[in-house]
Amino acid sequence: MANYGCAADELQSLTGLLASTGMGLHNASLAGQFICHKLDDMSSQIAATKLAVDNTYLLFSAYLVFAMQLGFAMLCAGSVRAKNTMNIMLTNVMDAATGGIFYYLFGFAFAFGTGQHSNSFIGNHYFGLEQIPNQAAGYDFSFFLYQWAFAIAAAGITSGSIAERTQFVAYLVYSSLLTGFVYPVVSHWVWAPNGWVSASNTDELLFGSGAIDFAGSGVVHLVGGVAGLWGALIEGPRIGRFHKEGEGFEMRGHNATLVVLGTFMLWFGWYGFNAGSFMKIAVPYSAGGFTGNWTGVGRTAVTTTIAGCTAGITTLFAKRILDGHWSVLDVCNGLLGGFAAITAGCSVVEPWAAVICGFVSALVLIALNQLSARLHFDDPLEATQLHGGCGAWGLIFTGLFAKEDYVKQVYFRTGSPPYGLLMGGGWKLLAAETIEILAIVGWVSATMAPVFFLLHKFNLLRISAHEEIAGTDLSLHGGSAYYHTDSSKHQAKLDSGNDNGDYRALDQTDTL
Amino acid sequence: MANYGCAADELQSLTGLLASTGMGLHNASLAGQFICHKLDDMSSQIAATKLAVDNTYLLFSAYLVFAMQLGFAMLCAGSVRAKNTMNIMLTNVMDAATGGIFYYLFGFAFAFGTGQHSNSFIGNHYFGLEQIPNQAAGYDFSFFLYQWAFAIAAAGITSGSIAERTQFVAYLVYSSLLTGFVYPVVSHWVWAPNGWVSASNTDELLFGSGAIDFAGSGVVHLVGGVAGLWGALIEGPRIGRFHKEGEGFEMRGHNATLVVLGTFMLWFGWYGFNAGSFMKIAVPYSAGGFTGNWTGVGRTAVTTTIAGCTAGITTLFAKRILDGHWSVLDVCNGLLGGFAAITAGCSVVEPWAAVICGFVSALVLIALNQLSARLHFDDPLEATQLHGGCGAWGLIFTGLFAKEDYVKQVYFRTGSPPYGLLMGGGWKLLAAETIEILAIVGWVSATMAPVFFLLHKFNLLRISAHEEIAGTDLSLHGGSAYYHTDSSKHQAKLDSGNDNGDYRALDQTDTL
Amino acid sequence: MANYGCAADELQSLTGLLASTGMGLHNASLAGQFICHKLDDMSSQIAATKLAVDNTYLLFSAYLVFAMQLGFAMLCAGSVRAKNTMNIMLTNVMDAATGGIFYYLFGFAFAFGTGQHSNSFIGNHYFGLEQIPNQAAGYDFSFFLYQWAFAIAAAGITSGSIAERTQFVAYLVYSSLLTGFVYPVVSHWVWAPNGWVSASNTDELLFGSGAIDFAGSGVVHLVGGVAGLWGALIEGPRIGRFHKEGEGFEMRGHNATLVVLGTFMLWFGWYGFNAGSFMKIAVPYSAGGFTGNWTGVGRTAVTTTIAGCTAGITTLFAKRILDGHWSVLDVCNGLLGGFAAITAGCSVVEPWAAVICGFVSALVLIALNQLSARLHFDDPLEATQLHGGCGAWGLIFTGLFAKEDYVKQVYFRTGSPPYGLLMGGGWKLLAAETIEILAIVGWVSATMAPVFFLLHKFNLLRISAHEEIAGTDLSLHGGSAYYHTDSSKHQAKLDSGNDNGDYRALDQTDTL
Repeated sequence: MANYGCAADELQSLTGLLASTGMGLHNASLAGQFICHKLDDMSSQIAATKLAVDNTYLLFSAYLVFAMQLGFAMLCAGSVRAKNTMNIMLTNVMDAATGGIFYYLFGFAFAFGTGQHSNSFIGNHYFGLEQIPNQAAGYDFSFFLYQWAFAIAAAGITSGSIAERTQFVAYLVYSSLLTGFVYPVVSHWVWAPNGWVSASNTDELLFGSGAIDFAGSGVVHLVGGVAGLWGALIEGPRIGRFHKEGEGFEMRGHNATLVVLGTFMLWFGWYGFNAGSFMKIAVPYSAGGFTGNWTGVGRTAVTTTIAGCTAGITTLFAKRILDGHWSVLDVCNGLLGGFAAITAGCSVVEPWAAVICGFVSALVLIALNQLSARLHFDDPLEATQLHGGCGAWGLIFTGLFAKEDYVKQVYFRTGSPPYGLLMGGGWKLLAAETIEILAIVGWVSATMAPVFFLLHKFNLLRISAHEEIAGTDLSLHGGSAYYHTDSSKHQAKLDSGNDNGDYRALDQTDTL
Repeated sequence: MANYGCAADELQSLTGLLASTGMGLHNASLAGQFICHKLDDMSSQIAATKLAVDNTYLLFSAYLVFAMQLGFAMLCAGSVRAKNTMNIMLTNVMDAATGGIFYYLFGFAFAFGTGQHSNSFIGNHYFGLEQIPNQAAGYDFSFFLYQWAFAIAAAGITSGSIAERTQFVAYLVYSSLLTGFVYPVVSHWVWAPNGWVSASNTDELLFGSGAIDFAGSGVVHLVGGVAGLWGALIEGPRIGRFHKEGEGFEMRGHNATLVVLGTFMLWFGWYGFNAGSFMKIAVPYSAGGFTGNWTGVGRTAVTTTIAGCTAGITTLFAKRILDGHWSVLDVCNGLLGGFAAITAGCSVVEPWAAVICGFVSALVLIALNQLSARLHFDDPLEATQLHGGCGAWGLIFTGLFAKEDYVKQVYFRTGSPPYGLLMGGGWKLLAAETIEILAIVGWVSATMAPVFFLLHKFNLLRISAHEEIAGTDLSLHGGSAYYHTDSSKHQAKLDSGNDNGDYRALDQTDTL
Repeated sequence: MANYGCAADELQSLTGLLASTGMGLHNASLAGQFICHKLDDMSSQIAATKLAVDNTYLLFSAYLVFAMQLGFAMLCAGSVRAKNTMNIMLTNVMDAATGGIFYYLFGFAFAFGTGQHSNSFIGNHYFGLEQIPNQAAGYDFSFFLYQWAFAIAAAGITSGSIAERTQFVAYLVYSSLLTGFVYPVVSHWVWAPNGWVSASNTDELLFGSGAIDFAGSGVVHLVGGVAGLWGALIEGPRIGRFHKEGEGFEMRGHNATLVVLGTFMLWFGWYGFNAGSFMKIAVPYSAGGFTGNWTGVGRTAVTTTIAGCTAGITTLFAKRILDGHWSVLDVCNGLLGGFAAITAGCSVVEPWAAVICGFVSALVLIALNQLSARLHFDDPLEATQLHGGCGAWGLIFTGLFAKEDYVKQVYFRTGSPPYGLLMGGGWKLLAAETIEILAIVGWVSATMAPVFFLLHKFNLLRISAHEEIAGTDLSLHGGSAYYHTDSSKHQAKLDSGNDNGDYRALDQTDTL
């Protein structure tokens, strides 16, 4: 946008014009200064107001994304057996806490530390938030907070895959590595202005297109899913999950209410995740127009909603046909799969395309779950299938259905950028999406598989069989998550009317 | 508001004025262009910033309203017996999911599809979000999202009334109809710019007033309550709820913690519901003034808070007197009744009037609950009494206490519009409010009662007695919501120290 | 900021200048009016947009702070034994409800009722929200809502300290007094523009500095903690909590999942609590600059995050060393202690200082918990130690680490204001912080200790021993929070296939 401040030369031209009319130079200069001062002041106020709006939008979006961590914690807690509740909740809390420190110290720098001597593979500025806020890069603290909330989501996905059988030390190791290094590198590739596969790359776009992964079907979900895949593979299934033949039997989570609570909370937070990824909302698409980034933000919230809803409905009926009952747990996972899939393309597709996205993602999840059962692959949260499988589908979907106009608006492209294959935009975008999938699978496998394998070799990965049967809460975390009092026997006592008003006289052991 | 862009003629007048001073026409034109260009550019930036603010406000309000669905789900789950938890949660999830698709395909069009050839009964544009965003109507995607979040609330209310005894297929039928057709028609009447009872009607106002139902005490709560009334009436009470004589015995929900969680979540979301219903926040009440829609939005949040708080406190003491104990469950319902009542008038009444609103709504709810018990009417969530009864009271209350100044500000009225009877504003507003109540009761009865009756006739409405006793979760939804492990016996095993490190050798059946 | 509206004299000067060039006075006046009209109109629109942004930011922050009440309720519910769940949840709900009415009637007036004849000890205007909105004071309804959400937090803290053994009437008495009087007075001292210890005092700053307590480590947390200290001291420990010797045994809360849910919800809401305390976000630090209050808001969210995360991690490892297990409950309390501590200085310290804040606060909490156990002081929620201890540390921390630049920006100081001792800013700020601590401890002790003591003397404070053993839910609140159905026996019946389709014939007692 042009600079409309009244600079010295512009002021001169204005006063010159006024002076040339016979107005005395001094008076003309005063008149010009008066007008210029007011124009400058208002320009400045408008700029400040815009920054205030953009930061408000981004900060509250970050808060929503953070709320997803609560959603994850409840979803995970409800999906495991009661005896491992403390364990899985601790991993969720620690994802946020260790993530906060590591991402502050170096994760953010690896991801977005572009600038002098930076490269397309990894960032190297802003360690410990040095030089933030940074006008040149356009980063304020809100941007860091938003990206941190994303980073901790990836680790959360993986902890679901290896739930109920993993040593807590192993969790601390892989989680730190994932949040502090593996994930930031991928986000650099895809989202930094000089990432090699980034659709925002200002130097050179892969295939003249770059991969569109708007809010991270690949960067967050596929990364978390692939890491979980290796963890779950190397650990093997939970004891008793599979028999030698057949699909084994389900190990039901202990609390479906928590699963629904977690799912709704994730849905709520996903509006921050997807619709917040514009970073700025006060960007008009044309001078004086009715539409702008606020339209894109709204459309993104709508496509996200529709993809999730379609996936949920599809799952409801599909599982009714397959299993014979209406399962709220399956619908919840179906919904989340739809959200994970639409995350890549949410800002660049039409609402009707979101219906297709959600429909297919439900089928992908069901198919992968059946495949997993046959292969005796045990992921207690279905995280590999859901975040990995639907995340990958989301990238393909974007390569098929991205709309030209939206690609131009969202990624500030001029001319004729590649867009969705089925929308007539050619193969280039789809190719870039595929490259992103392959690169992520390769990178996460190359880094995380060795980590899990080494932990396994040194007996640091899996808990002992007896601990697993007893539950990690008892052996590792100081006791069960639940202590229930039997009130009925006390009721009897109360009714018997032995209240002498002096509680100090009572048997001190009679308290629980 | 006037158009302050420098149009061609305005530019001409400016340059003409400058030229008339002896400034050469060419120079004068340049000076005029310079100033006009800057003024235009800033006007345009201001307009964009306003749109960004308004959409940010509306989108985040929509997210809050969506969070109410989580609140409903938890409130409902906690209020039913454990054996029907999966069932009621599935209906809450599906309200959102099917609502998302139906409202996208046609519900929104029925509600707000005004334009050419539209009428005051039902809308007929924007099916499948065609022509959205629409500058002429002032609708962006955020408006759709906000209205969708409202639509799914109505269906949620009804599912509470018929909880614990309804076939899932019956739920799918009535819920689709309610969200996709019955509710959108009512919202068209009351909120569309050409609805026949709308206080925003730009053609002709009913009684020169229109009915003020700002955020939907009638449109949402009364609609949901009346639909629930017919469902619960036609199904009859749950088995064992009433004996031949007396008020029967209470069937307690299984988890009060979930009820409190749900209530707080609904309270949280209600700020989006009521205070968000201004749609735009960047609207000053006078040029350069301190007050504007932001004042109205804040006042609405305050009246909402005060009405709920008063209703909660009133219920606490009233139930203590009536029942002899301090009941958090009753307080929660009291609060929600207060919110449902203030929803119609929240933006147009003084905070002190909200105290009256809440006080009366608590009494209304208690009285209706006692009446229901005498009539052997069984609504497990008290949804008919709460949303129907308090919702209707809210419309009457608005007709009594709406303040002239606020009616003018909120509904952009000039002159002397009718306002609250007790505030000296005459009978017209109260009459319009009454008409809205009658119209809603009539319309919802005429559409939903036949649906429930037909479902009943074809044995599709109520589950079998044995299913009801066993609980719907076992028969319909694949099992109970809760699976608890008895950790204590495993503790003994663990303590006995039989850890050979090879879990594969263990008895595979010893896993839960 | 200067007034850039085109006032009559400014218009005159502009037209005068134009006229002096030979332009006819009439034409010059028209040209001046044209330009002035446009400038005025845009200034006015900018001002409105700023107000809209600021109020949007403040209102949504208030909603987040309100969500903390949900967090408190769940944290408390999970931390007590099942038999007292209804009781503690009712206190949380009533904190919000009675708080809403009392703060509306007089609490807000005591806190922020500055103006004519007001003093530095207590406010005396705006009772019942009279004269709100108030341009002179800069208060709109959003400000009231925000402050109300703060007020109810203090009472919530105290109810944790005296959980599981307090009569409900006692709760009603102390809670009303705390929210309606004790807390508002402290907030007047520290936050009102004429509070005697306020860092925003426009007349005279204590030690030329005033105490910096940005979001209320002292005003909210220390107040709640000290009140809880007296309540818990006067009541004595729960029956069975301590034996004559040793540290006694832990009374575990009944549901760790609720504790984690509550902790995450509090974390979520804390972003509104701390980052929302700027009140306005559209305030640039310099004309046309990249930074402004939005930067401060973002930085505050970041320091809050980092302090909490550090405290959580520190607690994890410290408790692992001390107790031998990885405890999610301890980590949750550690996190909350970190948040309570950073609350005072969140806006004026660097992110690296937040690491120190969190680390020390974890140690403070652990030490105080050990001390409490030795002294046989029983606070079921550790609220005294956490909110009182870490809150006090937060004030000291601010006196040590506040950064000069940030003090200037946040408190609009010019010249060389005192700042953190360890940052080279001298002793004055630290002295003021210490005075605030002493004043709060003195004031809350002087008001609340007598209240608890009188309640105790009149046997209105503690429940009877038998009620305590049976649980308050049975005796006071109408029954347990939980009713679980044994579905298994019904399953058997269902399987036996005795479904005759007529549920009315069934034994009516066979219903649960």
